[in-house]
Amino acid sequence: MTSNQVLSEIEYNVVGKRPVRPDGVDKVTGRARYGADTNQTGTLQAKVLRSPFPHARIKSINTSKAEAFPGVRAVITAKDLPLASLSKAELGNEYAGLKAASDHMLASDKVLFKGHPVAAVAAVNAHVAESALALIEIEYEELESVVDVREAMKDGAPLVHEDLRTNDMGVTADKPSNVATHMSYSTGDVEKGFAEADLVLEREYTTATVHQGYIEPHNSTAFWNSDGQLNIWTSTQGTFTVRASVANVLRLPVSQIKVTPMEIGGGFGGKITAYLDAIAAVLSKKSGVPVRALMTRSEVFEASGPAPASWMRVKIGVKNNGKMTTVETDMAMDAGAYPGSPVMQAIVCAFACYDVENGKVDGYDVVVNKPKTAAYRAPGSPQAAFAVESLIDEICGQLKIDPIEFRLLNAAKEGTRRIEGPVARRIGLVECLEAARNHDHYKTKLEGANSGRGVACGYWPNRGFQSSVVMTVNYDGVVSLIMGSVDIGGTRASIAQQTAETLGIAYEDVKPTIVDTDSIGYTFITGGSRTSFATGWAAIDAAEDVKGQMISRAAKIWDTSEDDIEYVNGGVSHKSDEELKFSFKDLARQLATTGGSITGRSSVDPTGEGNGYAVHIADVTVDPDTGKTDVTRFTAIQDAGKAVHPSYVEGQMQGGAVQGIGWALNEEYFFDDQGKMMNPTFLDYRMPTSLDLPMIDTVIVEVANPGHPYGVRGVGEAAICPPMAAVGNAVAGATGHRMRSLPITPGKILEATWENGKG
Amino acid sequence: MTSNQVLSEIEYNVVGKRPVRPDGVDKVTGRARYGADTNQTGTLQAKVLRSPFPHARIKSINTSKAEAFPGVRAVITAKDLPLASLSKAELGNEYAGLKAASDHMLASDKVLFKGHPVAAVAAVNAHVAESALALIEIEYEELESVVDVREAMKDGAPLVHEDLRTNDMGVTADKPSNVATHMSYSTGDVEKGFAEADLVLEREYTTATVHQGYIEPHNSTAFWNSDGQLNIWTSTQGTFTVRASVANVLRLPVSQIKVTPMEIGGGFGGKITAYLDAIAAVLSKKSGVPVRALMTRSEVFEASGPAPASWMRVKIGVKNNGKMTTVETDMAMDAGAYPGSPVMQAIVCAFACYDVENGKVDGYDVVVNKPKTAAYRAPGSPQAAFAVESLIDEICGQLKIDPIEFRLLNAAKEGTRRIEGPVARRIGLVECLEAARNHDHYKTKLEGANSGRGVACGYWPNRGFQSSVVMTVNYDGVVSLIMGSVDIGGTRASIAQQTAETLGIAYEDVKPTIVDTDSIGYTFITGGSRTSFATGWAAIDAAEDVKGQMISRAAKIWDTSEDDIEYVNGGVSHKSDEELKFSFKDLARQLATTGGSITGRSSVDPTGEGNGYAVHIADVTVDPDTGKTDVTRFTAIQDAGKAVHPSYVEGQMQGGAVQGIGWALNEEYFFDDQGKMMNPTFLDYRMPTSLDLPMIDTVIVEVANPGHPYGVRGVGEAAICPPMAAVGNAVAGATGHRMRSLPITPGKILEATWENGKG
Repeated sequence: MTSNQVLSEIEYNVVGKRPVRPDGVDKVTGRARYGADTNQTGTLQAKVLRSPFPHARIKSINTSKAEAFPGVRAVITAKDLPLASLSKAELGNEYAGLKAASDHMLASDKVLFKGHPVAAVAAVNAHVAESALALIEIEYEELESVVDVREAMKDGAPLVHEDLRTNDMGVTADKPSNVATHMSYSTGDVEKGFAEADLVLEREYTTATVHQGYIEPHNSTAFWNSDGQLNIWTSTQGTFTVRASVANVLRLPVSQIKVTPMEIGGGFGGKITAYLDAIAAVLSKKSGVPVRALMTRSEVFEASGPAPASWMRVKIGVKNNGKMTTVETDMAMDAGAYPGSPVMQAIVCAFACYDVENGKVDGYDVVVNKPKTAAYRAPGSPQAAFAVESLIDEICGQLKIDPIEFRLLNAAKEGTRRIEGPVARRIGLVECLEAARNHDHYKTKLEGANSGRGVACGYWPNRGFQSSVVMTVNYDGVVSLIMGSVDIGGTRASIAQQTAETLGIAYEDVKPTIVDTDSIGYTFITGGSRTSFATGWAAIDAAEDVKGQMISRAAKIWDTSEDDIEYVNGGVSHKSDEELKFSFKDLARQLATTGGSITGRSSVDPTGEGNGYAVHIADVTVDPDTGKTDVTRFTAIQDAGKAVHPSYVEGQMQGGAVQGIGWALNEEYFFDDQGKMMNPTFLDYRMPTSLDLPMIDTVIVEVANPGHPYGVRGVGEAAICPPMAAVGNAVAGATGHRMRSLPITPGKILEATWENGKG
Repeated sequence: MTSNQVLSEIEYNVVGKRPVRPDGVDKVTGRARYGADTNQTGTLQAKVLRSPFPHARIKSINTSKAEAFPGVRAVITAKDLPLASLSKAELGNEYAGLKAASDHMLASDKVLFKGHPVAAVAAVNAHVAESALALIEIEYEELESVVDVREAMKDGAPLVHEDLRTNDMGVTADKPSNVATHMSYSTGDVEKGFAEADLVLEREYTTATVHQGYIEPHNSTAFWNSDGQLNIWTSTQGTFTVRASVANVLRLPVSQIKVTPMEIGGGFGGKITAYLDAIAAVLSKKSGVPVRALMTRSEVFEASGPAPASWMRVKIGVKNNGKMTTVETDMAMDAGAYPGSPVMQAIVCAFACYDVENGKVDGYDVVVNKPKTAAYRAPGSPQAAFAVESLIDEICGQLKIDPIEFRLLNAAKEGTRRIEGPVARRIGLVECLEAARNHDHYKTKLEGANSGRGVACGYWPNRGFQSSVVMTVNYDGVVSLIMGSVDIGGTRASIAQQTAETLGIAYEDVKPTIVDTDSIGYTFITGGSRTSFATGWAAIDAAEDVKGQMISRAAKIWDTSEDDIEYVNGGVSHKSDEELKFSFKDLARQLATTGGSITGRSSVDPTGEGNGYAVHIADVTVDPDTGKTDVTRFTAIQDAGKAVHPSYVEGQMQGGAVQGIGWALNEEYFFDDQGKMMNPTFLDYRMPTSLDLPMIDTVIVEVANPGHPYGVRGVGEAAICPPMAAVGNAVAGATGHRMRSLPITPGKILEATWENGKG
């Protein structure tokens, strides 16, 4: 049991309650249909041939033996993608982007990471396809590879892309490099700030490549019909994003592609990129029948997008009273094989918990011979929080200031300006810190030998973006809610709740359905902690459309003006004749005879997303003999704005904390000298299980987001930011050793202990 | 090749063109998924045990042996339906309706026709289910049966329902009878009209029970989830009707049921009634897994709903100049086992082609021990047209007036009042008759021995009713069109055309999708020739909603008032600044940055359906030795209002004509003395094939319906009304014998010939 504490501001009828989840029965009975459950008659199975080298030139590919293998229906290579027949001149500015996207799906001239797709086979079953892969003859010229972000930045490092030139704040460098982008933002006078400080500390931090570890591997089934219509069934965080990605690589208009979302077994940002869809599509076009592609777990590790490894330098100046005067960081993140790490978000989030006058942040997006990194829950922010929150803990130690008091003194609040510009509206960090200070966990004295307690903050801006919702009123008064947002963490419920709240009807009277890209307007991914906020907003707006039409029907029935009628308490009433009123259900029963069904619709692109803050408290015990760290107590506190469905919010907070603890203590990609991952299975890639962890206690803080009708902020991501530093700070307390490299493995602790003569 | 002649009034850009059908590729490649193609893992197969007797009391049912049979997962009888546990008192006025609906699905106390469902089994496969049926022990008490409509009306006839009392224009009779309803309408002074006539003829006519003969048998797959949600996949003319029917019998709120439409292999009115859905649902509830039920062809004949057999007396008075003074008819139609024949439509349509001052029509809805009849293309009207148009032909012969001139003289036109009340708006019968008179077919002299030519008219009022449409604008400018109307005869195309026309975009830029009952507002059946009219109207309305929003986006981009902008020529323009304009596609590309997608929506319940008229000309040759009639030339002329997609309209006209010719010459249910159908297969139930027929020539007349923006009337049904009389009139010409009983078989012709000493 958790000792949940909800600090609520406004009481709603449905929002804030904990109703039954609409997808619950299907998921617990095994009836929910995930991507791998697509089963159209005659579907072929696809297998992808992947590069065994982290870096090599493709000299030749011979697929003829594979094509001749009995049971094989189609074999494709990059030559089957449109890029192969498009000239650089033809594409102009589009060329670089298309080549990266196309080569990422199927490599043309070079392979850039172990696991990089080179060819694919569709056959009558997976075994035949697998056998055929072995018959594809590829001549490679192996190239020197680089997998470490700092090594990759050095002059003379092997170049992942021969023609990549650094974009340095809009200026393109003269010579090629592995640094795709350098970005830099500052405010105030950093040098003056350091000069005014009583204490200046500067440290370096590194984090390892880690994977989201969703249970369900990537999958896609495609059928390219002979009329040109391409149908894709896949589990994804964003059907419209898959549609756009495939349209881009295959040079199709988006409307020629229909993407149908299957249930999704976890995403955490990793199921946004479309890895298999275009491959399955082209195999389908070539074979004339549906083709299904599934990744194995090893393929997921080696060829989907993990979170980037990072190197970070942080420097902070403070007064003796704890007031921060200046902050500064350089952060370099590995983007993997193609540019696009989340380093921008890292430097933006790094100091977003603090109100500091002077600051400078520099970020470096660096390509290496590893799988292209992808989003992973608050992408970029967890690494940054580990560095910054670890250094602040060290400062608190030196100044002997309570870490919560220190953070309260410096906390960002309404009006605080982030280094790169945006000014905070009403935010809840102070309230979270106060909840932490007042929590039984923090007030309980830490006991036992080799124990430590750590505190850390985390920040995620949250997102808005476009969402569409349609809803229709059934004649029994139940509202069908149609949306394009796939449900990963409970958005069927949270959008249904906002719909019910707005209409003043019961949650059970809203029936949510997630539809394909042909059946709803554009809807951005479920990600960025945006869905309950933005799709919720669309639902509220569509419900208002319904309310207006309900008023108009009542006006028709009562033969009066719409202006005389108001929508109140889940029904309509005549403003001046109190005899005249309908409940929602009673009026719904009259729709059939007053013009037919009512359909409400909305497409929104809301700004006003509320920033999310989290504060975590971690207690650990470190075994001095083995170096093993046990998390003994953990409390996650977070501002939800308004927790639409508190159980789901708690789940998000607990899930983020657990993933962060895994990142802190266990998880990392091990690469050998040749840049091959040595642990691409769940046996060797060690994620925490429930037996490794205490119950994650949660406190939902609710500081309403002024940018949403119900104050919703979005809660999916902030919770993964603090745990690494909270655990690291606790380990420092327990061992006296400050660990600045993730994961904090037993080996690293023992090494530190031995070095310091304590072992 | 047809020599189609289209008499068009207005030229549109898309409406009236013949674009490629959206479902064409799937249907010709065999990829379209029909009801029997549902294939969820673990689906059980259902078989229905049907009564071997036309009329019997069920004394007892013992299912225990069937339940114990290996592989059987569920056995149900009427005891498993809610009716079994509801009291008559509890249900009050609802009781009779519910009992009929429930008993029709699964008989409780009595079986009323051979084929009446009594029990059903779900098993691991169809063979096991079939075997288990044989193990169900039923004790019947056979009752005397009645299958002929006139016999059933007699005093002392066996009572199909012991408690059925005639509703005679609102008055309930004292004693039970097989006549469920008597309806009567009159206008003017009928006796005076007859007195003024120079010629009065009175004749009796009969028609046989005939079947729609759709290729695809009935089917339903149901899954009753453990959360109470019932999912049904079926091929049906109306998903919302299936939903309502199942909800009624199973006493569920409609919103607890989701009906997903599969492709439909023909309906013609026969796929409106839900025969298998509740059975599959209850078997699924009992077994916990999906259950699929499929009818065999014999089950379709014996237990779905054919068109009623009829007896009709018609009496007409005319002046010597051909002007009709009075009309009168009694029509009795067999409803089958439960009340509800289309006799009301029969008497309404009977004289609707004519403008006569005095008239009286009486209709009798009669129950018999045959399967409950269902709608069949213009239900009721073909039988009535056979009678009336045959008698008019006889009158024309006696008066020596050309049959087209006679009809032109008496033709209904704008302002003509039907006997039961409604007054015609602008209609196109005169134009159809003129087109017939001017057609090469009619102007070409009939040649050859034993040949005859017949002319006849037909009428169908067409329907409106509720439809919902949603459409969203993709960022590439293609509009996704979402609707609840299933596509039987081309409505994907015709609704897409009206959408494109209204938006001023290309047909190819509209992508239609038919969705389930949870994903669109209430939409009535595809039937009644309503879909292109009413769903088309909804599409036009939703497109107007889109246009308004497109204007609003342009206003945002140009920072001007919406009032300054107009939507013209498939785009938006500033009214006073001709530099400012966007094509639809160009503006669509800007939606992402101006607020997201645009969704248009509409639910309509339009009145203003335009009445449909058809005139057919048939040439036949009758072999005097065998009595076999060959149709040698056939021309179908019809007012489409506006033919949205002329190829489909021609298809409807040809299909209606061919079905009518089958009805005229070949098709009938043969019953033995015990009321068992003797020919329940396509080998013995003889439908015309392409080898039996000439090309059906078509002329589309277009007299715009003032009740629809593009003048659309609806075209699916009027074409089946004239053929029986046209063929019968031609046979009369060829043989000198007036055939007043359908079908006009070789045997009947030979008998008539022999009786008259010609043979």
